[in-house]
Amino acid sequence: MKHKFSHTTCSICGTEYSPEEVTYTCPKDGGNLDVILDFESLKKRLTPDKFTDLPEASLWRYRNLLPVDDPGGFGTPLHRAGWTPVYQPVRLAKKLCLKDLWVKDESPNPTASFKDRASAVVVARALQIGADTIVAASTGNAGAALAGMAAAVGAKAVIFAPKTAPPAKIAQLLIYGAQVLLVDGNYDQAFDLSIEATQAFGWYNRNTGFNPFTAEGKKTAAYEIWEQVIKNLPENNQKLTIFIPVGDGNIISGVHKGFKDLHALGWLSQMPRIIGVQSTGSAAIANAFHQGDEIIQAVQANTLADSIAVDLPRDGVRALRAARETGGTYLTVPDEDILSAIAELGRVGIFAEPAAATAYGGLVKAVNQSIVSPNDPVLVLSTGSGLKDVSAARRAVADAPIIEPTLDAVKKVIK
Amino acid sequence: MKHKFSHTTCSICGTEYSPEEVTYTCPKDGGNLDVILDFESLKKRLTPDKFTDLPEASLWRYRNLLPVDDPGGFGTPLHRAGWTPVYQPVRLAKKLCLKDLWVKDESPNPTASFKDRASAVVVARALQIGADTIVAASTGNAGAALAGMAAAVGAKAVIFAPKTAPPAKIAQLLIYGAQVLLVDGNYDQAFDLSIEATQAFGWYNRNTGFNPFTAEGKKTAAYEIWEQVIKNLPENNQKLTIFIPVGDGNIISGVHKGFKDLHALGWLSQMPRIIGVQSTGSAAIANAFHQGDEIIQAVQANTLADSIAVDLPRDGVRALRAARETGGTYLTVPDEDILSAIAELGRVGIFAEPAAATAYGGLVKAVNQSIVSPNDPVLVLSTGSGLKDVSAARRAVADAPIIEPTLDAVKKVIK
Repeated sequence: MKHKFSHTTCSICGTEYSPEEVTYTCPKDGGNLDVILDFESLKKRLTPDKFTDLPEASLWRYRNLLPVDDPGGFGTPLHRAGWTPVYQPVRLAKKLCLKDLWVKDESPNPTASFKDRASAVVVARALQIGADTIVAASTGNAGAALAGMAAAVGAKAVIFAPKTAPPAKIAQLLIYGAQVLLVDGNYDQAFDLSIEATQAFGWYNRNTGFNPFTAEGKKTAAYEIWEQVIKNLPENNQKLTIFIPVGDGNIISGVHKGFKDLHALGWLSQMPRIIGVQSTGSAAIANAFHQGDEIIQAVQANTLADSIAVDLPRDGVRALRAARETGGTYLTVPDEDILSAIAELGRVGIFAEPAAATAYGGLVKAVNQSIVSPNDPVLVLSTGSGLKDVSAARRAVADAPIIEPTLDAVKKVIK
Repeated sequence: MKHKFSHTTCSICGTEYSPEEVTYTCPKDGGNLDVILDFESLKKRLTPDKFTDLPEASLWRYRNLLPVDDPGGFGTPLHRAGWTPVYQPVRLAKKLCLKDLWVKDESPNPTASFKDRASAVVVARALQIGADTIVAASTGNAGAALAGMAAAVGAKAVIFAPKTAPPAKIAQLLIYGAQVLLVDGNYDQAFDLSIEATQAFGWYNRNTGFNPFTAEGKKTAAYEIWEQVIKNLPENNQKLTIFIPVGDGNIISGVHKGFKDLHALGWLSQMPRIIGVQSTGSAAIANAFHQGDEIIQAVQANTLADSIAVDLPRDGVRALRAARETGGTYLTVPDEDILSAIAELGRVGIFAEPAAATAYGGLVKAVNQSIVSPNDPVLVLSTGSGLKDVSAARRAVADAPIIEPTLDAVKKVIK
C-alpha cells in the first residue's frame, strides 16, 4: 500500500515506526502516536494559496494534508464533516472589551459535534486498510460521530457503551444503524472490552487516545482556523489565542498538531497560543499543568459537562504540550460558570452543549485575570450543539412565566 | 421607503395591495398574501448564471430575489441560514429502484430546522420597517428559529407558547434569550393572544400563515434545489419530483412560490412536481385535496410528528395549489411508517425528526403505488434534525442488548 504519511512517532519515547508497523499506541510505553506527513514532498507540490484540488465546504478540502485517501462517499454526510462556521459575536466582544472575537461553532457537523472530524478520517483509514467493521467505546459524541460517518458510506460500526449511558445518546447511535452493546460495567470496562473484541474479531478500533488517526481528523479544525481567521489577521498582530474545551485531551492535541503541520510547511508565521479549559470537576490535565508534571493523575470526575467528564485522560501528555509549547495555559471553570456561558452564547444565537460552552467560560475567566489583553485576537472553539444536552440548557436559564390568555396578563410580565 | 417588491396579492380574492398597504393577511377575507417581485426589472439585471452579488453559503446569496434588504449580521448565525446540503443516498435509491434520489437536509441550519429560512427573512423585514420586537406563537421549530435569528442580530423576540409545550423546546427558546410567555390555554389561544399583543404594543408578528414574509424565506429552498439539483439534470429529464412534509402548509407554499418566481424569471424550463406528505393523524390538507375541496376542514390532529400536527392549517389554500398546479398530489403516512422512515434515513447517516422523515415515508408509499417511476429524478425535503425529538427516535429503533463485560458475551450477540 502507498502511504500518505512518512511514519509515526511515539509522543512519549520518540520511537519512529514505519507506516504499517504499529496500528494503535506505542508497543514500548503505550504512548499515543503522532502521524508525521512527508513535509518535503508536500512543500514541493503545495503552497498556502494552492493546497487543494477539492475546494469543497468540508474537511476533505485538506485531503492533500491528510494521511488517508479520500474515502469517496461524495454526496453523503461523510463529505460534509468540517468546514464549520466562524462567528463574530460583536456584542460578546464588546462586553469582554476584546477587539476581535471569533467563535467556531461545530454544531452544523452532520452529527452535531466536533467528533465528526475524527470519525470521518478514521472511517477513511478503515476503508483504506480493508477493515469493514469499526468499533469504539463511547457514551456520547464520539460514538454518534462514528455511527453517523460509518452509516454514510455503509461501513459497519459497533459501539460499546456503559449500560448507564443516557438513553437519548444511545438512541442516536441506534438510529445510525450501529450495533450497540450496553456493557454491564463502567466506561473503562467498555473501553477495555472494545479493545479485546477488536483483537478477537479483526475489527478496526477508533477509541480516542488510542487510534492515532483521530487527532489527524481533529487537526483539520486548525487548518480551518488558519484559512478562515489567521490568514486575514493584520501582519503586525497575527498571534491568535485559542480557547479549547479539554476532557481526554485529544481535541486540543489534534488542533495543536494541525498548527504544527502548518508550521512545518512554512505556512504559519506565528504559532497560536492555545489555552485548554477544563471543568473544575474534571481537571486532571489542568492539575498536572499547574503542578509542572508530565504525568497525569486520575481524578474522580464530577461535572455536568459530560463530554469532558474524564477520570484519567487518555491523551494527557500531548494535551499538556499543546499549552506549554505555545505559551498557553490551562484554566478551570466551575459548573455554574459553564451554565452562564451557555446562556451568554445563546443570547447571540449560538446554542452550545456544556462541554462546548466551557471554552467560552474559560475566556471570561482569562479576561478577568488579564490572561488575554483587549488587542489579542481571540477564538473560542465551541465543540457541539446544545441540542445534545437539553437538560443542561434548562438549568442555564430561568423558567418562563405562566400567564392567563389575556392582554392584561401580558402587560404585567412584559418588561 | 424603497421596496424590493412590486405589490402583494391576496391568495383567495386576488386583490392587489401596494407594498405598505397591508402588513399581514387580506383585510377582505383573511387570505394569505403573496409577495410579488418586480420581475421585469429583475430580468433586466439578472441571469440564471449571474444572479448574485454575494456568493456565500447562505440564503442571502439570493438577496436580489428577496423582498427585503440584507439585514447585515455578517459573521452571525443569521448569515448561516440556508444553503443546506443535498445528499445522494445511493443505497436508499437502489432499495427504492430509483435512478436519482436526493435528500435535502435542513439540520445544519443554525437552530437545526428549515424554519430558520422564514425567521431570517422576517427578522430582515422587521429591521427594515423599524420594528424592534418580533413576536410569534409557537411551541417548536418556528419559535426557536425566530429566537435564534433575532438573537444573532440583537433584536428582541417574544414567544407565546401553550404552557403544555415540551420543556425541552421551551429551553431552546429561553437559551436564545427570547421572552417566553407560557399561556394557560391551547395553541390557538396563544396564537390569538400573540396577535392581540402585536396590535397593543406595536410589535411585529411572525406567525406562520399570517405574515407574508415567512413564505418568502421558505422559497429560498426552491432556489437552492434549482441551483444544486435541477440545473445539473440532463436536458431530456428535468422534471424533478419533490416530497415535502406538510402541517400548516406554509413550507410547501413557500417552496412552490420559489419555483413560481424562477418560472416568472424564465429560468426554469419545467416546474417540478410537488407532492405534499402529511401524517395520517393530521391530514386536513390531504383530505381537502382528495375531496376536490378548496376549503380545509379542521381535524383533531393526533400524530407523533409534532411539527406537522395541526388541527386547522393556516396556509391550506396555497398548500393545495402547490400540488394541484404542478401535477403533484398529497399522500398520508401513519406514525409507524414515519418511525420506519426515521430508521431508514438514519442508516445512511441522516438523523431526521418525525415531521422531516414523513416526507421520506411519502416517497416509499409513492414508489409502492407507482406514483413515481424508476427514471423520475426525486428529491426529499428533510426539514429538521432528529435531535429535536430524541424520544421519537427511541421509538424508531429496537433497544440495545445489555451484556456482561466479557468477550464471550460479545460473541453471543454479534451477528
